[in-house]
Parts: sequence; C-alpha cells; structure tokens
Amino acid sequence: MTDYILRIDCPDEKGLVHKITGVLFFNNLNIERTDEFVDIDNNLFFMRVAFSGDCDPERIEDGLRGILPSTANIDLTTKQVKDVVVLVTKEHHCLSDLLIRNEFKDLPFNILAVIGNHEVLRPLTEKFNIPFHYIPAEGITRVEHEKKIEELVKSYSPDYLILAKFMRILTPEFTEKFSKKVVNIHHSFLPAFIGANPYKQAYQRGVKIIGATAHFVTDDLDEGPIIFQDITRVNHTKNALEMAQAGRDVEKIVLAKALKLVFEDRVFIHGNKTIIFE
Amino acid sequence: MTDYILRIDCPDEKGLVHKITGVLFFNNLNIERTDEFVDIDNNLFFMRVAFSGDCDPERIEDGLRGILPSTANIDLTTKQVKDVVVLVTKEHHCLSDLLIRNEFKDLPFNILAVIGNHEVLRPLTEKFNIPFHYIPAEGITRVEHEKKIEELVKSYSPDYLILAKFMRILTPEFTEKFSKKVVNIHHSFLPAFIGANPYKQAYQRGVKIIGATAHFVTDDLDEGPIIFQDITRVNHTKNALEMAQAGRDVEKIVLAKALKLVFEDRVFIHGNKTIIFE
Amino acid sequence: MTDYILRIDCPDEKGLVHKITGVLFFNNLNIERTDEFVDIDNNLFFMRVAFSGDCDPERIEDGLRGILPSTANIDLTTKQVKDVVVLVTKEHHCLSDLLIRNEFKDLPFNILAVIGNHEVLRPLTEKFNIPFHYIPAEGITRVEHEKKIEELVKSYSPDYLILAKFMRILTPEFTEKFSKKVVNIHHSFLPAFIGANPYKQAYQRGVKIIGATAHFVTDDLDEGPIIFQDITRVNHTKNALEMAQAGRDVEKIVLAKALKLVFEDRVFIHGNKTIIFE
Amino acid sequence: MTDYILRIDCPDEKGLVHKITGVLFFNNLNIERTDEFVDIDNNLFFMRVAFSGDCDPERIEDGLRGILPSTANIDLTTKQVKDVVVLVTKEHHCLSDLLIRNEFKDLPFNILAVIGNHEVLRPLTEKFNIPFHYIPAEGITRVEHEKKIEELVKSYSPDYLILAKFMRILTPEFTEKFSKKVVNIHHSFLPAFIGANPYKQAYQRGVKIIGATAHFVTDDLDEGPIIFQDITRVNHTKNALEMAQAGRDVEKIVLAKALKLVFEDRVFIHGNKTIIFE
Repeated sequence: MTDYILRIDCPDEKGLVHKITGVLFFNNLNIERTDEFVDIDNNLFFMRVAFSGDCDPERIEDGLRGILPSTANIDLTTKQVKDVVVLVTKEHHCLSDLLIRNEFKDLPFNILAVIGNHEVLRPLTEKFNIPFHYIPAEGITRVEHEKKIEELVKSYSPDYLILAKFMRILTPEFTEKFSKKVVNIHHSFLPAFIGANPYKQAYQRGVKIIGATAHFVTDDLDEGPIIFQDITRVNHTKNALEMAQAGRDVEKIVLAKALKLVFEDRVFIHGNKTIIFE
Repeated sequence: MTDYILRIDCPDEKGLVHKITGVLFFNNLNIERTDEFVDIDNNLFFMRVAFSGDCDPERIEDGLRGILPSTANIDLTTKQVKDVVVLVTKEHHCLSDLLIRNEFKDLPFNILAVIGNHEVLRPLTEKFNIPFHYIPAEGITRVEHEKKIEELVKSYSPDYLILAKFMRILTPEFTEKFSKKVVNIHHSFLPAFIGANPYKQAYQRGVKIIGATAHFVTDDLDEGPIIFQDITRVNHTKNALEMAQAGRDVEKIVLAKALKLVFEDRVFIHGNKTIIFE
Repeated sequence: MTDYILRIDCPDEKGLVHKITGVLFFNNLNIERTDEFVDIDNNLFFMRVAFSGDCDPERIEDGLRGILPSTANIDLTTKQVKDVVVLVTKEHHCLSDLLIRNEFKDLPFNILAVIGNHEVLRPLTEKFNIPFHYIPAEGITRVEHEKKIEELVKSYSPDYLILAKFMRILTPEFTEKFSKKVVNIHHSFLPAFIGANPYKQAYQRGVKIIGATAHFVTDDLDEGPIIFQDITRVNHTKNALEMAQAGRDVEKIVLAKALKLVFEDRVFIHGNKTIIFE
Repeated sequence: MTDYILRIDCPDEKGLVHKITGVLFFNNLNIERTDEFVDIDNNLFFMRVAFSGDCDPERIEDGLRGILPSTANIDLTTKQVKDVVVLVTKEHHCLSDLLIRNEFKDLPFNILAVIGNHEVLRPLTEKFNIPFHYIPAEGITRVEHEKKIEELVKSYSPDYLILAKFMRILTPEFTEKFSKKVVNIHHSFLPAFIGANPYKQAYQRGVKIIGATAHFVTDDLDEGPIIFQDITRVNHTKNALEMAQAGRDVEKIVLAKALKLVFEDRVFIHGNKTIIFE
C-alpha cells in the first residue's frame, strides 16, 4: 500500500472528474480526498487527488493521458519528503526555524545544505550537522556568483530551493533554471512596500499592521505567485527596528506554513497566482 | 440552464466519486466545483458538487440512489435563496446586521418574519417592512410559549430558524422539530464560558481574547455543531460591559459568515461536528 | 462632577508630566488614566489624561499655558458625543453600520446629516429619520460641487466629516478647510493597491489577504495618517467581486473601530502618522 | 546615564502621578514613557515609568516611600536582561524557540539552565552550550522530585522559571516558593479545555479555532493570571494530532510574546489577572 498525490491541470471540459476518477477506480485504488476547482474566467481545470493502493504509476499516467486533453499537466508523486537547499545571508530567524523543523521532522522536508553569501550562519547550521557552503559575492560578477550557486545547488538535486532571507536579487536567468521550484519569504505584506527596507517604509508610513509574504520566485522579483501571507499589529511606539523585530516571527511562521502547503503538493501555479487546496 | 448544489454523505467505499460524477456526466451536466472528504476514522464519505445544465432532478436522484449505499443522504437543491425566521430578545446588533443584509441582498436569504419575546426590536424590524411578532413568555409555561412560537414559525415554512441573541433556552422537544435547521450565535468562544453571563466570566478570568461561536442548535444547549468562530483582543482596561460591547461586532460578523456557509449549502452535520467545504 | 479628556502635544522637556499633573492636582481634580509617549527621534511629547472633578476649564488651560512650551497644543474637552456629517456615494455597507450604531448609541456620535452625490441611499437614511441631501456632481465643475458640499456641511457645524465610501476625490482646498477632521475608509490595506479598483488589483495579484484602512484625509489622497487597519483571508476561489464582498465587512468594522478611537479623543496626528492611546 | 523601569501599585488616591513624577523630576531624571491605570472597581493604582539619568536608586525609593501609601509595592530595576531556568519534558518546540532566541539575543533574557524530567531534550540543549539537568520523577515521591528541582533552580538564582511544555503538575508548595516568577505555556485557549489532552478535547468538540495561553502559575493550575493568548484556525480535515501540530507554532510564539512583556517589566499581577502596559 502506497500513498499517492495526483495533480492535474488542463483546459476544462465536461466529464473530467468522472474520467479521472475512473482511471483510479478501474485500477482498484482508493481515493481519500478530492479537491477540484474550475477557473471559469480562463476555462481551466485544477484537480488534486490523494489516493492509496498498489499501482504501477506509469500505467496510471498512461491511462490519464488517454482521457485528458493533450496539454494537460499530470503530476503523480509518492515522494512525501522533499529535498531542499536553503539560501541565506545574515539573518538567522527563518533558517533557525527551518533547521529546528528539519531536526525534529516538523515539516515534510530534508535540508541537504545551506548556502550563504556571508559566513555568519555557519556555526548555527553546523550545530545541526547540515553542510554550510560560503559563496561570497565579493570580487566577482553577479553572473559568476550565480553560476557558482547554480552548480552547487545542482550537485544536490533538490526538489526546492528556499530563500530564507537571502538578500540578493536573483537574475531571471537563474530563476528560470529552477522554474516553479524557488520559494522566497518577503519581509512585507506584498504588494505593499515592494523593494528595499520595507520596515523602514512601513514605519515612515505609520501603518498599524505589518505582514510577510511567502511566494514563488519568478523573473519579476516581487511579482511571483503568492502562497501564504500573515500579519501582526504594530503601533506608534515601534520604530523601524522594532517593526523588523516584530516582523521576524511572522516571517518565519509564514515561510513554514507556505512550505508545508508546497511540500504536501497542495499548490498549483498559474500565471502569477496560486491555486491551493488546503 | 440551472445551477445545482448536490450534497451526499454515506459510508465510504471505493469508486464513489467516479460513480457519482458518472451520473452527472451521462446526464450531460457540467461540474463547476467538487469537494470531497473522507472521515477515515469513521469511514464516512462527504461530497458537495456544484454543477449546471438542464436536468430532471428526480432522474438525477434516482440515478444516484442506484449507485450509492442505501443509507446515503442525498440533497439536491436549486434553491439559492433560503427563507428564514429570526428569533430575538432585546439586543439589536445581530438582528440589525441581518435586516441590513436582507434589505441589500448581501446574504442569500429572505427574512420572512421576526419573533421576539420582548417588543423592543419591533420598531427596528418594521423600518424594513418585515413582520414582527411579539410572543411574551410571561404568565404561561415554557411549553406553552414554545408551542406558540412553533405554530407561528411553521406558518411561515422557513428553511432555517435563526436565533439572533434569543436569550431563552429552547427545550429539546422544540429543537427536534427543527432538527439541523436552527442556527444560534453564542456570545463566547465555545467551549469557554458555557452558560450565563460569558462576558462577566471572561472579565473575572482576565482573558486577553474574547470570541463568538455560531452553531447549530441541538438538545444539548452549548454542544451543537460549531459552524464558525472568531475572536477579538481585549485588555485590562475593559470591564465586563466593555467586553460585551467589543464582543458585539464579533458576534454579528460570525453569525453572518456562518449563515453564508449554511445558505450556500456548504455545511454537513455529523454528530456534534460540521464538515464545511469553503 | 464632570469627565474631562485633556490632550497635550509639544516639544519634550524634563518635568512635563510632573508639571501637567500638578496643575490638575492643585485644582483638586482626580486623574483616572494617564497615557504619555515621547517620540525620541523627533523630541516630541504626547499626553492624554482622563480626569474628573469640578473645575473651570479656562483656569486649567491658563495653568497649563503657564508651564508648557509656547508651541504646545492643548485640547481639553468634555464633549463625549461628537457631531458628524456623513458623505456617501452608492455603497450602503458603511453607512448602514453607522446608522444602526447611531440609532442604538453604539458609538459616541450623533449623525446630523448624510450627503450623497447619488440618491440611492436616501431611503435607507430616511428610515432612521436622518436628513439626506442629494448633491449631484453632474453638470457642474468639481470646485462648484465641493463648494455646495462645503456650505451644507458648515451649516451643520459638525466635529467630524466621515467619508463612508464616498467615491470622489476631494481637492486639497476642500480638505484643508476641515483639517484633521475628515475620516475616510479606504477599501484596501494601504499602502497596497493605492488608487482605483483595489479589489480588482488584489484579484489580479492573487493575494491571500485583503484589508481595509481608516485614515484621516489630507492633501495627498491615500497618504493620510492611518488610524486603524484590519484584514480578512481570501483564496483562489474568490473573483474580484467576491473579494469586494468579503472586504465590505472588514471596511465597516474598521471604520467603526477607528471612529471609536477618534471620538474618544485617543488619537493624536503628527505629520502623516497617528499616535493612539488605546 | 542608566535606563530604569519603575513599577508602582497601591491604593488609588489623588495626586499620585504628580507626586511620583515629582520625585523623578527633582532628581533630575528624564521620563521617557509613562503608563498609568486605575482599577476603579477596586480603587487600585498601577503605574510604570521608563526613565533615564544618573541617580541613586535607594534615594529614589526613599523619596517614593515618603509620598506613597505604606502598602505600595515599589519595583525599580535596571536589570534589562533577566536570568531564567527552563523546565521541560519531551516536546521540543517551545524550548527550541527559546534556545534560538537566547543564542541570538532576540529576547532580553539569559537561559542559565534547562531541567528535564526526561532526557530527550538534552542533545538539543547542549548544542547551544546550555547545561541540561535530568531529574527523573520515577521511583521517588512528587515531593522528593520537586525538592530536587527546587534546590537545583535555587542554585541558579534565576529571575524567572519558564515551564516550556513541562507536563507535570506542580504542587502549591512549590509554586509558592517562586511566587509570581513562574510562567507556563498552556496548550489551549484558556479557560476552554482545562486539563489533559486539550487537542483531543478540541477535536472531539469540533472547534474551528484552537489557541494557546501563557500565564503565571499559581496554586490553582489553570487559573493563573493570563499574560498573552493567540489562536489559529483549524477545520474538519484536522484530527487531534494535526490540531496539536498546528497548535505548536501558536504555543511557541505566544510564550515568546508573553516573556517579552514580562522581561520588559510591563506586567503587573493583581489577584488572578494581569495589568499590562504594552
């Protein structure tokens, strides 16, 4: 008995649910949960099925190909624990939270390595027996720096790349190589305060709420598909530094909740949006 | 073209989703959204399907009976606006909010009448041209009082009965007559502060958060299936009266959100719990 | 015995709290609550004192002038119920909520009149016996339109002007005439989605949270000092219209909470920020 | 120049704020923030003053004794970083969060030692070079076990004792010895689900929100003064185990926020309630 997650998205047409579940039924599989959504404006069909049983995945995929539109994306996985590489700079709070969750199996993931463009988080990382790689950006071009990171990341073959307060902007060339596989935590309630120093901006604007946003990274830095957001209240007594401090707890929890959704294969990406079956 | 909501719950078995969607597919109907959940501990299957097309509802129900376990509950409706009767006592805030939503069609419902065991909310109700019936409890027994309410309610044949701060305890005999059709707003975060004067209890306990709970009413007063809950923060500067004031806005929004879920046929009741497809 | 609220802001210097409370003590007044905040970056002192007793307000103000820096703002009031005029366009939800709160004394205010640039909210307003004035913008210039509103508002001498979904942009000339006295509800989580159609923007961006912001209106439309903000969660199943519907409940509650803070004289304005003693 | 926090509580009488601030003013000290609250029902006065300057603390306390009621509690401190001992059992999430905050100085505290009645959290604790003491309860009486803990705790002379998922009930004799110095995180939204297995209780009751409560520990286990509470949403898809998982993030953040308030000397305890100047 194995547990499978099947994700399908394709143009909508009549009978899809019936046909898809038919393939599973006639292979004697047991559906535990079905979520389905039709984006009527764009005539798109999204479906996630959690099922169990003994099956030949190739046979299932062949069966599905036979009844689905030719442009359908079909993703059938039994890999419940995802391999990740984490990129960091100097701030520890998101990395700390991920290392603890990795240590105690609180998220269905496995941290293969941490890469930093500074070295300050090496001691923390190594406490948990995770390899830390220092790839400084000084003295080389952006392209050379990204090339080094890319090679190192690829040597680990991770399922996802996590930017846990990695404070450098990645080029579209880089993110394209890991398309739909890079998750970032942005220290503001997107789309408010795009760009640098969001807490300083928030302080200057006198907001009463600050937030954080976890999103997939695409070409356009702060425009990637949003996965999860949350907020916390602030008031006039907080300066920009204290707002940043208050924001840290939101950031780490938002990142963890977004990753849980991603690792459990609950998230579909379409354009700059996500469809999420919670 | 009509829009339908189909709700099914029954013991789980293999192939249910395939068979159910088959009945719809072979009647040439178009599924817009499917939600399905299996309660594995109790081997129960819950499914909600929103679909559109031209069909004979009886034919669909017959088709479903043919492929479902004999104990299945099947509910197929095209009634998108539900008829309700509202019961009140003296507090206006939930009734006000419902009258405004009724006036501006902000909730898919139609208030047929308001019944009060006090007369103070008559002027408010009549501003909106809704009949107000005063049924005082004084000088008669509880059973006689409920009998009067029951007869009046039945004369309106509502789909749901809403207790919008109706401060009398209903007997099990009464609630059984409207089984799974009575929604109450409870002025606390159940199961905290069961019973009378929850805000006084909350004040005395020094809580930092107060809440409200909308639930179906069953025999056991504060034990009915919970539909929706929300909270608001309080602090040491609030006395019991101010906590009650702060609680009012939570109560009215919680009741409205719960009713939206109920009126859109998103809520299943099983035992003292709800399964809700949002 | 009268209840007073004293608000003072001025450049900070040593001994201010002692000197201010001395004036009250030596007039035999009883302080019930003191809130004080020093904006260290800008060397500014803000203080709110709630006190009771019998006193000659002029004598108190003279006493305070004698010990405070000459540039101090001193505001001493016993007016606990504020007079307001409400401006609206076509959407009812904020006006409805305010009319109900006015009817049942749920906010310390008194609605003197409602002014609409459309006539659709007249029947609602008149249900509650509040004068409704229709001032259409068609066929006249913006300046002429504002002039008419200004004259009408001034004829009521309100303490505050409430923009309850008034969908026209006011000129700086207009807002200057009611400086620090105009409160607006903005249908987004400022500073996200500044400008028109915020819910459409939110939908297109695929956000997971939408919000509302109550703020004072200044020259720069969406840059006024923020009083209160709150949010609600949305997901991929909501289109722009449904996001707007979900936003309405947030808007009305945010406006009411902000007005409560303003009417209770808890809010100081400094630049584009507020200092709020809750 | 030193930073001081002064906390005073006593029966209320006229002139207290003036007299207290006078003592500071005539010692040439600079008040940065004042918070004051009068519990009118109980005629109690609470005041917190943050001030800076050069002073002789004894002289200030003498000055205050001279003008305050004889029963006043006066607490004047310059100790901004508090020493703590943490008690744990087997669950790691609150301890992990505290160890990380200790390592990176994210909370104004210093963890002197961790004491466990099981040994499973020793490796985690020792990664951060904090002493871990294993005091098993097996084979000895409750009184003997507490006696061992008490002696060990006292050898560290901590300012506070933190129960970070310490799953044993402490006797009143023990908690009295550390009166108002023991902070616990309770895995429910008190007063809901008092007692064992709150998440199982929450699951069985079908709640839509779960919470956590940080409170001071007094004789009566779940009745101690509440410091901070927060909540997270759950739904029908979560079983008791998943509710507990979802609850962990709330627990760790609630504990950290409560400790920040306590360590910054913002919390007064009166009876079973707290007065908190945020």
